[in-house]
Amino acid sequence: MIKPTPLSGFPEWLPGQQLAEQRVIDTIRQVYELHGFSRLETSAVERVSVLAAKGEINKEIYALGRLQGTPGRWEMALHFDLTVPLARYVAQNSGQLHFPFKRWQIQKVWRGERPQEGRFREFYQADIDVIGDGQLSLSFDAELPEIIDQIFQRLGVRAQININNRKVLLGYYRSLGLDDAQSAAILREVDKLAKIGRQQVSALLQAQGLEESTIAACLKLSELQGPPAQVLAQARELQVSQELFQEGLKELQFIASELAHIDSQRLIFNLGIVRGLDYYTGTIYETMLPDYPSLGSICSGGRYENLASEFINRQLPGVGISIGLSRLLSHLFAQGALDCQRQTPTQVLVLWPQEDLRPACREIARQLRQRGIATEIYHQPEALKKQIRYADRKAIPWILFPYLYSSADPQVEVKELASGQQHQCRLEEFQP
Amino acid sequence: MIKPTPLSGFPEWLPGQQLAEQRVIDTIRQVYELHGFSRLETSAVERVSVLAAKGEINKEIYALGRLQGTPGRWEMALHFDLTVPLARYVAQNSGQLHFPFKRWQIQKVWRGERPQEGRFREFYQADIDVIGDGQLSLSFDAELPEIIDQIFQRLGVRAQININNRKVLLGYYRSLGLDDAQSAAILREVDKLAKIGRQQVSALLQAQGLEESTIAACLKLSELQGPPAQVLAQARELQVSQELFQEGLKELQFIASELAHIDSQRLIFNLGIVRGLDYYTGTIYETMLPDYPSLGSICSGGRYENLASEFINRQLPGVGISIGLSRLLSHLFAQGALDCQRQTPTQVLVLWPQEDLRPACREIARQLRQRGIATEIYHQPEALKKQIRYADRKAIPWILFPYLYSSADPQVEVKELASGQQHQCRLEEFQP
Repeated sequence: MIKPTPLSGFPEWLPGQQLAEQRVIDTIRQVYELHGFSRLETSAVERVSVLAAKGEINKEIYALGRLQGTPGRWEMALHFDLTVPLARYVAQNSGQLHFPFKRWQIQKVWRGERPQEGRFREFYQADIDVIGDGQLSLSFDAELPEIIDQIFQRLGVRAQININNRKVLLGYYRSLGLDDAQSAAILREVDKLAKIGRQQVSALLQAQGLEESTIAACLKLSELQGPPAQVLAQARELQVSQELFQEGLKELQFIASELAHIDSQRLIFNLGIVRGLDYYTGTIYETMLPDYPSLGSICSGGRYENLASEFINRQLPGVGISIGLSRLLSHLFAQGALDCQRQTPTQVLVLWPQEDLRPACREIARQLRQRGIATEIYHQPEALKKQIRYADRKAIPWILFPYLYSSADPQVEVKELASGQQHQCRLEEFQP
Repeated sequence: MIKPTPLSGFPEWLPGQQLAEQRVIDTIRQVYELHGFSRLETSAVERVSVLAAKGEINKEIYALGRLQGTPGRWEMALHFDLTVPLARYVAQNSGQLHFPFKRWQIQKVWRGERPQEGRFREFYQADIDVIGDGQLSLSFDAELPEIIDQIFQRLGVRAQININNRKVLLGYYRSLGLDDAQSAAILREVDKLAKIGRQQVSALLQAQGLEESTIAACLKLSELQGPPAQVLAQARELQVSQELFQEGLKELQFIASELAHIDSQRLIFNLGIVRGLDYYTGTIYETMLPDYPSLGSICSGGRYENLASEFINRQLPGVGISIGLSRLLSHLFAQGALDCQRQTPTQVLVLWPQEDLRPACREIARQLRQRGIATEIYHQPEALKKQIRYADRKAIPWILFPYLYSSADPQVEVKELASGQQHQCRLEEFQP
């Protein structure tokens, strides 16, 4: 006999948590779909050549081999994110897609991380991206944070979306006389601000050979954060006429006007976020949970110039954002922030007190299910105490006594277990 | 540049098919939940020792290695079904589960099949199982086919569920004086009836050294099929008093009485199905689609004595059934049996005719979404013809003209693209 033990890095939830996870996934999907995003599910497996198309793979990847074969060259592997598969899918099917192509994709991804660092090796991401053909309207840059805001509102989790624009940063650096290589180096260091603080970043920039005044200017810019209108005003006060900077400001201005209805508790402009290592070229997003600052950004993304240049000779700009679903969930579970009491979707347990009431139980259950009410019939006629204990343990909210029921006179007695309140009514009037 | 091509055996659908697949998955899940089954998702990855716990693995398994590491001993692999993971999960968490444990599980599984045989290497299964602690009521054996029947009814796909009971078969063979080894051999051959026909099965049984009269008796039993009441009557006429046979008949009798409301077009008893290689001990199920007989059984399962004897010293009987979702879908797609026209969940496209109508568009979209209506605003102010073409191509059913709208007087004009009908109404009265 093999005693199974958990596989470290491969999270699995208990039934109550499974239901909570499903509610979160359903909420995310619902908001995505309300905004016209269409489902995409790609295969979990990709050719290694596809995963490596961007050059060196800096993620730990799980490659596939045949258990009964001898390992040879790796040809297939599990995807490590949902962006490479999207790029490959769009390139492969570009002739049959209608642009702008808006897709949601909620799938697991796999990374061979060291489990001792508390990282997941198998986890869910919940992505949306909009891909344009040749060009892509800025309105989508404003739509994504609105969607994310709605998701967290519906989940009842406090979240603050931070928005910046790479053009503002790069244009500003250019106005300081820095070249692109220097700018890239600054982005990389400024990216560490939230983690290591102003002083250490300053030291790192000094080590790059930057002048004191340049460093001060870069840090000053990165400290602008707050309500969009305020940050825009502060940025304008810098009086930078550099073209790219102005273009970035204009884009931010549009987003601010689109999202003016969102409170700054929930959405700010933050010129200090840069997403250093990523390929973004315009708008960038990060999302923090004020109640769980240690989590860092739980939902990030941005605008990119070209989705699939490795796979197709066609300009496909895009903007996307990704929720780190498993990381979010495991944190909310650990904090007890999600209700995990219910063990089942069942709303009503129809009791089966004695053999001859079985037809009544069946008829009642069928009618409730037809009305969309999840219903179980207790599985055997035995002591009511035992039946009620079953409902109790699974946190089924209602039990139903079928004694009085007949097709001619469909009377039932129902009891809400939490309140203990019990009443008699016609079956069709019962609304749990 | 790498030109991506499909990975054979790893199906991926176009957007219209993706939506259709989602509708099918949602329908299956909804019916499962209406009957009180609770979501379970296990990790895709299992220890090889767990997958091999039943002894020799006769499925082709994909094992995992590190892309950047050197292949050594395989320790982890992708699951090849949802039953072994269920057994492992239940054993691992048995102290925290409430029995009977009813779970649904809709997940992908992986098998290293030869793709040239048209088989999938990555595909969805949609399983339900009920696991008891020590014993398990027969009422669940009757519940599963009722659930499957409802699913196919809701999908609008004609399906006929076939039910048998292993006890009837084995009891009958015993009554003919056959021992267990012989019985198992007969099951294996009779399993081929639908594929190779009576004559060839008869020859195979002769090759086993069985007598002519025994063969005739076995084949006669396996030919009993039809409405449950009729098959029960025919089985009783065989006048077999053998205990196991009688026990099986009694179980079938209970199931017949529970499912009397289901037409025999949709549900029959068929003493010819045996599910030869599986571990079932009582009720067994197969489901055929009369319109696609070549598909074979698309949904099979049965009752088993002990789920997890490899992992835990506790008697956990169960009954389960599994829908071969990807196989079903690919067949329905190939037959054009599913509507795949819609490219998006969007129900209404709000047109954006000119810049200054943007605030009205936003307000309209927000109100529609609040009412649960999936809405897009066209992404830039341009020629209406182009905007309508976008709706057309994505098969968005409604377009909305925002010209007349104001907060004070929320008039809009809407047009259904399929019918061409257009009318003016108050926004809150519009119901797409």
